[in-house]
Amino acid sequence: MREEIHDTIRAVSWAQERLVLLDQRRLPQAETWLALDEAAPVADAIRDMVVRGAPAIGITAAYGVVLAARSAYRRDPRGWRESMELDLARLTAARPTAVNLAWAIARMRSAMPMSEGDPVPPLLAEARRVHQEDLAANHRMGALGASLIEAPCDVVTHCNTGSLATGGYGTALGVVRSAYAQGKLGMVYADETRPWLQGARLTAWELLRDGIPVRLIADGAAAALMHRGGVRWAIVGADRIAANGDVANKIGTYGLAVNARHHGVRFMVVAPTTTVDMGIASGVDIPIEERSPEEVLSVAGQRMAPDGAEAWNPAFDVTPAVLVDAIVTERGVVRAPDRVKMAAMMGA
Amino acid sequence: MREEIHDTIRAVSWAQERLVLLDQRRLPQAETWLALDEAAPVADAIRDMVVRGAPAIGITAAYGVVLAARSAYRRDPRGWRESMELDLARLTAARPTAVNLAWAIARMRSAMPMSEGDPVPPLLAEARRVHQEDLAANHRMGALGASLIEAPCDVVTHCNTGSLATGGYGTALGVVRSAYAQGKLGMVYADETRPWLQGARLTAWELLRDGIPVRLIADGAAAALMHRGGVRWAIVGADRIAANGDVANKIGTYGLAVNARHHGVRFMVVAPTTTVDMGIASGVDIPIEERSPEEVLSVAGQRMAPDGAEAWNPAFDVTPAVLVDAIVTERGVVRAPDRVKMAAMMGA
Repeated sequence: MREEIHDTIRAVSWAQERLVLLDQRRLPQAETWLALDEAAPVADAIRDMVVRGAPAIGITAAYGVVLAARSAYRRDPRGWRESMELDLARLTAARPTAVNLAWAIARMRSAMPMSEGDPVPPLLAEARRVHQEDLAANHRMGALGASLIEAPCDVVTHCNTGSLATGGYGTALGVVRSAYAQGKLGMVYADETRPWLQGARLTAWELLRDGIPVRLIADGAAAALMHRGGVRWAIVGADRIAANGDVANKIGTYGLAVNARHHGVRFMVVAPTTTVDMGIASGVDIPIEERSPEEVLSVAGQRMAPDGAEAWNPAFDVTPAVLVDAIVTERGVVRAPDRVKMAAMMGA
Repeated sequence: MREEIHDTIRAVSWAQERLVLLDQRRLPQAETWLALDEAAPVADAIRDMVVRGAPAIGITAAYGVVLAARSAYRRDPRGWRESMELDLARLTAARPTAVNLAWAIARMRSAMPMSEGDPVPPLLAEARRVHQEDLAANHRMGALGASLIEAPCDVVTHCNTGSLATGGYGTALGVVRSAYAQGKLGMVYADETRPWLQGARLTAWELLRDGIPVRLIADGAAAALMHRGGVRWAIVGADRIAANGDVANKIGTYGLAVNARHHGVRFMVVAPTTTVDMGIASGVDIPIEERSPEEVLSVAGQRMAPDGAEAWNPAFDVTPAVLVDAIVTERGVVRAPDRVKMAAMMGA
């Protein structure tokens, strides 16, 4: 297990007193690393999708709070708490849908030292714990999710939910990694995931590195794939899960879930409890980010649509709990999720 | 009506004794026209998607037969019928799924003159009839399909089914044009239609030229769009319709149909009877073309997936008749299609 942890790529790390991010906008063509030492560019990096994936966004924000505190303490060793509020607001506002972002900032707030002196050592220790706990949760979810797959089969996944999207290993791709290690997987079909092509650029790249068989499909080909047979599970991550088990995730997830149900393919959502928002009753209330139409009108910086064309570009959609066969968190598996089962799992 | 006919762009035409094709691979960035005077490059143009859309492929093939006959007659004024068989085979094999291709070649065969003398004038006249009949069928289907839309609403469409895909006007987009002229349409949502992006490149371009409001979406956003409300109809074309009403159409159509049924959105298939293949009992027997994985791995000639990645790239899928609310041909509307109703409509 330890070797696996060391082998998977780290999208987010702390090195030489700076936050180091792998620029996921440039993968797989180039592995470019950005070293950041202030909070404002961290907020920009989250907004611009240098880093993406709900757990990775949360970890990045935690380190961003460390940077905000360091800058504030240098400016004002007494009033650093107030002085960093603007940076905290910037980080919080960077992206609206993934609740891990707000969760991580709230947790870092609760770790702010009450005493005098440099707040960086205790905050950095807390950010490292946030990171390590996510990694440990991924491995636990991998084992739990893989246990749901009874017999060797093909699976289909959407977006990227691997090392790049998390503290390492992955949520849905963590289940894929664990299931593959147990000999339970044939082929992993990866939706290319327009408009940002996380499947084509990131998931294929991660799985090829691990030697796990992966085949890309256009998002529109998933229904034909399920009809053909062989695929038993669709496995996805989440950006926010409501108290009733409704799941906000990358645009295209909901249509995949509808098709999974139609074809008798089971639907598994894998996310740490940091993604569960018990303060949101149902998916209707989850804020859905709409991103620039340009992401749809252009591909890889090249304009595809004619001048004057419009696009609607919601970054996420909501899959109702009724279409979800299992939600897997590090605390356990919730089958056919509903409000009562979710509350029991969360210990609420 | 006549003005409309003249205003819509012609993807296929005959001018100065040559077949002229608008190169749809380069739209919307460039309007490039190819003038062809032999059959072999016509077969290449069909295979390489210079021209696409089942009715347009059929018309192109009809003109291709004229070119084949002309070359053969020049080579061998007596044995031209045998001499053109290789070209006919090339044309027939260019693409497997759209039955209009084989239909057009069979019809041109039946128009080959038995008498001595130049076969080009009668064959050209027949090809022009194929073209004009398709155009007339489009206008008839436009009126019939629009009559199914009771109240003003938004619609969603997939791929390109307009002037570019037909002899002019369009099948599903013909219905959109007619319904818009009758004040029945709010917004037309166009799936971008990966991997070839017919929606982004062609449908948006056609509708913008006509001043019809169009908004592009990633294919994966269609389910969220339907859930939001406003969309009452999904309207698509077809490449081949089996005797039982199963519909082969551009990859992504089937998943759209599953989602339409899930959301109570009605599903309309618009295609001329030249697309109906009564010799095929059901969709299971329709040959589905698989195109190069490169179409998925790259976008607009730019490689997006990592080296070594694989892709599965079926160009079409099959929507079972049970998910289709209406098939509209120039002969009428078949609601809830099945074998008996299809046979009655076809006069079989």
